[in-house]
Amino acid sequence: MIYLSRQEHFNAAHKLVNPNWSREKNIAVFGPCANENWHGHNFNLIVTVAGEPDPDTGFVVDLKQLSLLIREKVIEPLDHKNLNLDVPFMMGKMPSTEILAQEIWKLLVSEIPKITQLGQLHAIKLYETPRNFVEYFGPDRSKL
Amino acid sequence: MIYLSRQEHFNAAHKLVNPNWSREKNIAVFGPCANENWHGHNFNLIVTVAGEPDPDTGFVVDLKQLSLLIREKVIEPLDHKNLNLDVPFMMGKMPSTEILAQEIWKLLVSEIPKITQLGQLHAIKLYETPRNFVEYFGPDRSKL
Amino acid sequence: MIYLSRQEHFNAAHKLVNPNWSREKNIAVFGPCANENWHGHNFNLIVTVAGEPDPDTGFVVDLKQLSLLIREKVIEPLDHKNLNLDVPFMMGKMPSTEILAQEIWKLLVSEIPKITQLGQLHAIKLYETPRNFVEYFGPDRSKL
Amino acid sequence: MIYLSRQEHFNAAHKLVNPNWSREKNIAVFGPCANENWHGHNFNLIVTVAGEPDPDTGFVVDLKQLSLLIREKVIEPLDHKNLNLDVPFMMGKMPSTEILAQEIWKLLVSEIPKITQLGQLHAIKLYETPRNFVEYFGPDRSKL
Amino acid sequence: MIYLSRQEHFNAAHKLVNPNWSREKNIAVFGPCANENWHGHNFNLIVTVAGEPDPDTGFVVDLKQLSLLIREKVIEPLDHKNLNLDVPFMMGKMPSTEILAQEIWKLLVSEIPKITQLGQLHAIKLYETPRNFVEYFGPDRSKL
Amino acid sequence: MIYLSRQEHFNAAHKLVNPNWSREKNIAVFGPCANENWHGHNFNLIVTVAGEPDPDTGFVVDLKQLSLLIREKVIEPLDHKNLNLDVPFMMGKMPSTEILAQEIWKLLVSEIPKITQLGQLHAIKLYETPRNFVEYFGPDRSKL
Repeated sequence: MIYLSRQEHFNAAHKLVNPNWSREKNIAVFGPCANENWHGHNFNLIVTVAGEPDPDTGFVVDLKQLSLLIREKVIEPLDHKNLNLDVPFMMGKMPSTEILAQEIWKLLVSEIPKITQLGQLHAIKLYETPRNFVEYFGPDRSKL
Repeated sequence: MIYLSRQEHFNAAHKLVNPNWSREKNIAVFGPCANENWHGHNFNLIVTVAGEPDPDTGFVVDLKQLSLLIREKVIEPLDHKNLNLDVPFMMGKMPSTEILAQEIWKLLVSEIPKITQLGQLHAIKLYETPRNFVEYFGPDRSKL
Repeated sequence: MIYLSRQEHFNAAHKLVNPNWSREKNIAVFGPCANENWHGHNFNLIVTVAGEPDPDTGFVVDLKQLSLLIREKVIEPLDHKNLNLDVPFMMGKMPSTEILAQEIWKLLVSEIPKITQLGQLHAIKLYETPRNFVEYFGPDRSKL
Repeated sequence: MIYLSRQEHFNAAHKLVNPNWSREKNIAVFGPCANENWHGHNFNLIVTVAGEPDPDTGFVVDLKQLSLLIREKVIEPLDHKNLNLDVPFMMGKMPSTEILAQEIWKLLVSEIPKITQLGQLHAIKLYETPRNFVEYFGPDRSKL
Repeated sequence: MIYLSRQEHFNAAHKLVNPNWSREKNIAVFGPCANENWHGHNFNLIVTVAGEPDPDTGFVVDLKQLSLLIREKVIEPLDHKNLNLDVPFMMGKMPSTEILAQEIWKLLVSEIPKITQLGQLHAIKLYETPRNFVEYFGPDRSKL
Repeated sequence: MIYLSRQEHFNAAHKLVNPNWSREKNIAVFGPCANENWHGHNFNLIVTVAGEPDPDTGFVVDLKQLSLLIREKVIEPLDHKNLNLDVPFMMGKMPSTEILAQEIWKLLVSEIPKITQLGQLHAIKLYETPRNFVEYFGPDRSKL
């Protein structure tokens, strides 16, 4: 098995507010992330595909196709958007980095096999800032 | 002369919309940056102070004091905020990286001499993304 | 399971000397790292917590609390310190990056559950330089 | 177990061409990577060794020795070379990042035990660009 | 004056050979950079435009237009190419980073005014590797 | 004029203490940087040479020679050393980044002409941490 990764990026606004909570509780829990008028980030996304290299190409997956797939399915609906208001698959969900990474997994897991017979989605790594990031390996797997 | 620099960062939301233009013209000019529901960035800010090192300390300016000054005057009003709605000194101004850098200069230029007798503000460098950034050297100076 | 990571940093001095060895043997084994008068590094530390996101917040752990915990338990005793002389939990231990990462694990493993019911310490990643780093997953686990 | 990593780099030229295919098919599959006159990259290589720290040194492996080994066995034959024409162990193989990472594994796996009794080769991570990279853990292991 | 910069990148092969010299002299002067079978790099290019912000947009130049211009005029002829064989404006020139930066200046200096009335080309910064780079400010200007 | 830069690095320990001051005053002014038992950093050094490219090589200066010169004159006496105790040219001087950059200038300014007839030392840029750095252009020049 080889693990091939591609990094893409997008910029978005969001706020962290639980609609079942009072304004006071939201501020107590989320602090400045609950700012009513939003804030935003440059997100960096790394998508990892695991598989065997194709003997004809040496590729687990063609990186150009992988990049185009990520841009179409993930970057297009997220870039220069508001995660709370503009993104259909985030509606009604808390736009934390954790939840966003899980939703990006769902967008890609059945698409990767369409561009490679030898690989499958292995991991989503999502940086909210250079110092805060999450990794997700799907609902059935833990890292160790 | 020695040029001493300190990097700080903040996260903010904004949109680029000229209120004198139609929605169509704003979209034509600003593209996705005009998204009504905002988008955002992790901004990186580098403040440069120029001066002679103090013989007693070897410092042009104490970096801890410089960091605290930048945080109080610049990061505090900008971090986790909406540049169009929440920031008094940006009210009525286009929140482009260019204009924001000029406004940050104005916030700091008279404050730097309060923490150093030997240095003065030399430059503001502001990254909107790792690939897009501006530099400003004040209203009276050009770089060459 | 989601893996959430936070990066912090500290600066410290150290030297690598085995007190049971002659000066000659220490120099033969550790080279310039055995310099009697010390040398130092900007260390970067990445702490990873594994768990399920809380349905109310979308968080495995609150990153602000995680950052404060790391700063209190790890950065405070290490930053601007001498690893051989100033740090109680390193006394009598070889201050290699490997041993330091294991000691940082011990400092945090029982503290993480105090700030999250859903997550536990998963990994310590410690950069001594941008090109030299270690990862540790606790005494009972290997990576594969 | 501790995982110790060392980063090295090399610059090389290559092209991606399957000699069993027509020029048209190569261009259709590999695009600009099939340019007959070559292109090139600054490759970054991270080699990870897993093991227990030596009680006398605190080291899984001496990083100076690890660096010299990687330079002798991997960097020397690859740096400032053409992966298709100049590198004995790549002859007749597709010089994709995937295949190159597997070949680097083969070069190092039996060499690491010569410089450490406590560690063994754990992973090869190879960046072709900052946004495209692969990881390989040997023929018998997968990451999860 | 504000200085606005945009970073783009390209991958290319080259070799450093003076056709008026013997093979021995080329190897003596250029070392491994003279490898007959080429080597290559991931080049990073930063283009800086100097000017006053447009009062209507806050922009010195529209970054999307600047990015497209750089891609059309510079990246397209250089990316995945051989600097010695494939690039019309480098024919008969030594493909050092210095000369390449000067040629990129010539490609852009008269194009920038077509996308902004307020700015002009200020600088070309070209990284051959993260540790080797050049800056050029045009034929008539020095930096200080 | 072209400006060619080369980055090197070194690790060192230091403390900031003015021997004419009491312990209390040193702690008040320098804070944790005055720790008696030292602390340390991974320093990054960028040396810039300005000049015209040689028509035969396309080089302002040969980067291999520049790298070797920097290593011999600057890195060798600083790497894995104590800036207060081990470095002859820093004796009796405050080891701030400002002073260290000025001393590195003095080490190199008369050496650069020995490896290039076309270039001269233009700037020293010294990072103490990724967020704190200084630039120096010699005793007779300011940046603007």
